[in-house]
Amino acid sequence: MKSTAIQDTYSEMVSHCYGCGRLNDHGLQIKSYWDGERSVCRFTPLSHHTAFPGYVYGGLIASLIDCHGTGTAAAAAYQEAGRQMGTEPELRFVTGSLEVRYLRPTPIDATLELRGSVRELKGKKVVVDIELFAKGDLCVKATVVAVQAPHKLMSQVSG
Amino acid sequence: MKSTAIQDTYSEMVSHCYGCGRLNDHGLQIKSYWDGERSVCRFTPLSHHTAFPGYVYGGLIASLIDCHGTGTAAAAAYQEAGRQMGTEPELRFVTGSLEVRYLRPTPIDATLELRGSVRELKGKKVVVDIELFAKGDLCVKATVVAVQAPHKLMSQVSG
Repeated sequence: MKSTAIQDTYSEMVSHCYGCGRLNDHGLQIKSYWDGERSVCRFTPLSHHTAFPGYVYGGLIASLIDCHGTGTAAAAAYQEAGRQMGTEPELRFVTGSLEVRYLRPTPIDATLELRGSVRELKGKKVVVDIELFAKGDLCVKATVVAVQAPHKLMSQVSG
Repeated sequence: MKSTAIQDTYSEMVSHCYGCGRLNDHGLQIKSYWDGERSVCRFTPLSHHTAFPGYVYGGLIASLIDCHGTGTAAAAAYQEAGRQMGTEPELRFVTGSLEVRYLRPTPIDATLELRGSVRELKGKKVVVDIELFAKGDLCVKATVVAVQAPHKLMSQVSG
């Protein structure tokens, strides 16, 4: 597993995301790591990230999956292109769709581990499967369809 | 549209949700309203709820959909049972699955409007379709499969 988080290779101008932007002081600052084949994200929820007492809020879980999915897509796309992560022109992905299946309540007194793998990488689209584990139990399964951020969006950001 | 929010009829012990709990000071405090057929939730994102500058974070959108979906399910289930919302035994729903399709980037300088409708209500399961509008544009379509909170979970909460 690489020691640099995928999100830490994002350029400054696209690092304000509430989920994973290192420059968003109010955000979750999610970090994902890629080993060339799979990705991992670990996140320890705070007590106020609750749904019912004792369990993690489903919206927080969807947020972790969202950013871990687009991060994994970026890592895989750079690798497919034979390029170093973070090099220009930047390959950033946005979420086209998200499917989350909550298999069991996720305990809040645990570090959550999300494991990502790429099911499909075709042109500007990457499909990422994600499993979320807590205390060794598989709690959530998800699929993220990530789409390469359109040039227009990136131009707006830089403009 | 009723003047009392669905979430304001939830009992105190289940009102700590990060998304919609009125007793969670750190949370989003989402409010949904039901008119007997459809539900509406309006939410104005803060500047730090961003993905790319100018646009709303997809994880926040998934969170709004999550709580608006389970709230709509509760309102519909009470109505189906011919009961007043908030009466005991409490009918609360958790998210079984969530599917979110991001049709276009959602502008952040807008009040978002989520409109919910019940596609299916069968036993303990309610399927809710949600559309999210910003500045008059349909930005997101979603489906929430909500499942009545198991007695065991509610007992743990009260116990």
